[in-house]
Amino acid sequence: MSHHYTTRLHEAAEAKQTPVLVGLDPRLDQLPPDVLAHARELYDDPAAQAAAAFEEFCIRLIDVVAPLVPAVKPQSAFFEELGPDGCLALCRVIRYARKQGLIVICDAKRGDIGTTAEAYARAYLAGVDPLAAPWGADALTVNPYLGRDTLEPFVKVAKERGAGIYVLVKTSNPGSASLQDQQANGMPIYQHVARMVEELALETLEEGYGCIGAVVGATYPRELAELRAVMPHVPLLIPGYGSQGGAALDVVGAFHPNGYGAIVNNSRGINFAYKSKEFAEQFGPKRWEAAAEAATKQMIADLAKQTPAGKLLYTSF
Amino acid sequence: MSHHYTTRLHEAAEAKQTPVLVGLDPRLDQLPPDVLAHARELYDDPAAQAAAAFEEFCIRLIDVVAPLVPAVKPQSAFFEELGPDGCLALCRVIRYARKQGLIVICDAKRGDIGTTAEAYARAYLAGVDPLAAPWGADALTVNPYLGRDTLEPFVKVAKERGAGIYVLVKTSNPGSASLQDQQANGMPIYQHVARMVEELALETLEEGYGCIGAVVGATYPRELAELRAVMPHVPLLIPGYGSQGGAALDVVGAFHPNGYGAIVNNSRGINFAYKSKEFAEQFGPKRWEAAAEAATKQMIADLAKQTPAGKLLYTSF
Repeated sequence: MSHHYTTRLHEAAEAKQTPVLVGLDPRLDQLPPDVLAHARELYDDPAAQAAAAFEEFCIRLIDVVAPLVPAVKPQSAFFEELGPDGCLALCRVIRYARKQGLIVICDAKRGDIGTTAEAYARAYLAGVDPLAAPWGADALTVNPYLGRDTLEPFVKVAKERGAGIYVLVKTSNPGSASLQDQQANGMPIYQHVARMVEELALETLEEGYGCIGAVVGATYPRELAELRAVMPHVPLLIPGYGSQGGAALDVVGAFHPNGYGAIVNNSRGINFAYKSKEFAEQFGPKRWEAAAEAATKQMIADLAKQTPAGKLLYTSF
Repeated sequence: MSHHYTTRLHEAAEAKQTPVLVGLDPRLDQLPPDVLAHARELYDDPAAQAAAAFEEFCIRLIDVVAPLVPAVKPQSAFFEELGPDGCLALCRVIRYARKQGLIVICDAKRGDIGTTAEAYARAYLAGVDPLAAPWGADALTVNPYLGRDTLEPFVKVAKERGAGIYVLVKTSNPGSASLQDQQANGMPIYQHVARMVEELALETLEEGYGCIGAVVGATYPRELAELRAVMPHVPLLIPGYGSQGGAALDVVGAFHPNGYGAIVNNSRGINFAYKSKEFAEQFGPKRWEAAAEAATKQMIADLAKQTPAGKLLYTSF
């Protein structure tokens, strides 16, 4: 097994024959009734109840998706909202996912200066050995606003440990333009960040990719294709698919002709498929895991059919 | 007592007669020997040892500075580096500082989109009632890269709870220029962010200030004065004083003529004063608390003497 993050990710994507990334976004008001009831049986304290529910929900969801997809992306904010109990649940969920052979990208959007950035890197980026960092993740999302020198500590730790980072370049939210699209020296800010990320990726190459990735929203398909060209050596993480409006056709431009280069995330559309228009009637709250499985399989099929990349990846063996 | 964050902060600064903010930056390799020895007596597990040492160090430092300054700023990264044990220590440190009457700004530089941003806001921003959020802070540092719409959930929660946020505008690190100084539409990106922050502050005014603040580094004195003018209603948080190179004269421009408008942070220079050129000989590792006290008093005096703002604040009663 390679030590390099992106090589490991691609091996996992080949093994599962899909670039689908499942977000783990537990939200208390959306969790299935059986998970909530079980947590209430275990604890009286509301924070302990919520943390237990998050942990059970994510672990059962991991059991559903581990045979189907290469990677999962827990959203740290929802766990942090529960305080220290939630942080412990996040830690356990990451370790469980790794133990099931999944690549884990911790979506915590960290960023700070100098040795503080290095502390974040050492906290989250375990890389090859899940025990190398307390949070045990393979990769971490990182915010570039503080500047290029603040990305370097993350790059250093990622290289050492066989971990990856995904730098926010063009985010999926409607207001991402307010800062990221500001034109500076003839190109938008997100293009400046993209060039920075490509340079850092070039310092960490293996099999054509750096271990420094970029986040680019599925909700901006034109920018996605443009950024794929600007960052040929950068693995992309594409959020915004599904409930945020991105569809299979929108992410075509993220892939290289050989089917590599991007993973496409879906969180709510899979986590809470049992509540969705498409799957609610067929499955309902008691069969929420079957609904999540159906939604995952549908996304895999949609990407495989509707994007050339998906097709290529599917037939790469 | 006012419900408004900045009014509360100014009341605290008046009571202590200084705008000094003490950062809580525990670093394992710099902690005093007695703190480390005590933690080793308590636990065998290295993470539990480190978390216990962080907690004891911060609590003893809080005991030193609580009579002297209005506010403290724990750096979340160092606690997160210890995993869930560290998160629990951070939680306890924040609660202890609040109980000693200090304003607590959690320096975690969070940022995400929509309901995820709201989860971060609800996690950290307790505001007036320390029990209103699991992390119990008065204020939180926030990263603006994702765009203006992603600041709004923080603003909403801050208003509701009497909490504050400090948006990164111009950070103190040498490489902050690489993104923040990019010229767009005739002004640098940090100016665009500053205008965004001033607008948000205007929506949350009380006694001339919004509860939406900005982080501007002491290492950029020219920009500091310029940004004070662009954001007249925005409370500033000034990092970079002391070990990063900023001095009392550099922060003059951050204050309004009446002595309000900014708090100036010092972390390492106070936390580890016992190791510094200035205080090591006089105090040494056993008297680290006395060294921290002396360093705090010296910074208070320097700001009071060397900046007109300090003098004015000192004589405002």
